[in-house]
Amino acid sequence: MSNIVWHKTTIKKSDREYKLKQKSFVLWFTGLSASGKSTIANAVEKKLYDLKFNTYLLDGDNVRHGLNKDLGFDEKSRIENIRRVGETAKLFNDAGLIILTAFISPFISDRKLVRNLFEKGKFLEVYVDASLETCEKRDPKGFYKKARKGEIKNFTGISSPYEPPKNPEIYVSNNGLSIDKISQEIIEYLKKNKYI
Amino acid sequence: MSNIVWHKTTIKKSDREYKLKQKSFVLWFTGLSASGKSTIANAVEKKLYDLKFNTYLLDGDNVRHGLNKDLGFDEKSRIENIRRVGETAKLFNDAGLIILTAFISPFISDRKLVRNLFEKGKFLEVYVDASLETCEKRDPKGFYKKARKGEIKNFTGISSPYEPPKNPEIYVSNNGLSIDKISQEIIEYLKKNKYI
Repeated sequence: MSNIVWHKTTIKKSDREYKLKQKSFVLWFTGLSASGKSTIANAVEKKLYDLKFNTYLLDGDNVRHGLNKDLGFDEKSRIENIRRVGETAKLFNDAGLIILTAFISPFISDRKLVRNLFEKGKFLEVYVDASLETCEKRDPKGFYKKARKGEIKNFTGISSPYEPPKNPEIYVSNNGLSIDKISQEIIEYLKKNKYI
Repeated sequence: MSNIVWHKTTIKKSDREYKLKQKSFVLWFTGLSASGKSTIANAVEKKLYDLKFNTYLLDGDNVRHGLNKDLGFDEKSRIENIRRVGETAKLFNDAGLIILTAFISPFISDRKLVRNLFEKGKFLEVYVDASLETCEKRDPKGFYKKARKGEIKNFTGISSPYEPPKNPEIYVSNNGLSIDKISQEIIEYLKKNKYI
């Protein structure tokens, strides 16, 4: 028991970045379902790992079954989903890690809210552009088929709009190139702009 | 456009731990308001930093104004607060970091739910024991005074129960010792039990 004022010795973001020998930032992948966001993000993460960087990837696999498992797919829930992913990415960023996220995040306004959580230049929007036709042909989980039948409601591209970024930091087209080439393009951008 | 099956090359927790040269785990601090959880957690984090470990600390400061800013302090919100902190800690754990959390987390059932998110042995409950009298005398933010006047409802220790852990992995008493000594006790536990 005491009246001593406790001085918090707090480890700061800059301390963590110094120890990890890197500067943190976020790569925010956006695009239609089956556009390849998650696959490309994983490939980029692998390349960053091989280059000795410390990263983490948030996507439906690790977020929708855990942190956001209370959320559905109605509009309100989808907005909250993206808000929480943004806030979690911010915590990872504060921890000094390079963070990648792969969510459809169809609305410009939601992505803008997330962008505003970060310092200028730390939020990089990566637009994975693939035509609806391409995505619908891929349809690895059969979602498009179900959406066309009306079995899934508010499905982006079918019954709910996708608003492409007007000025994404990184644009990649995933209508033909190999995943390796596309992910390498992103690595080149990061090198050229001194993120890595 | 292709029918190629994309093989996800996924960086796993074990890969990250290998790179970070550490094994991840969570130090979950629980105790009354003003028991010193956050101060001790910060001091432990500083010591871990000096020992070259990579850590992150979740507490009210970085969670309540961001990820959980939509939550109030009613019972339902407090349960959800702890659930989200647990899930976020799990993500950080998956990222290979040693994660510390400092929240009152007054209910055994909530802490048990969080414990069950982690592999056996990876969740370490740290009970910061300080008497209600001690905490109320400290009252750095004037919360106890307000709670006694009824201006804050459901305040742990006054108008809402605190359920101490029955078998915490780590027990520390914060009724007199210096923060430095208390945090060193925790470091010794981690060394002795080969966490660090």
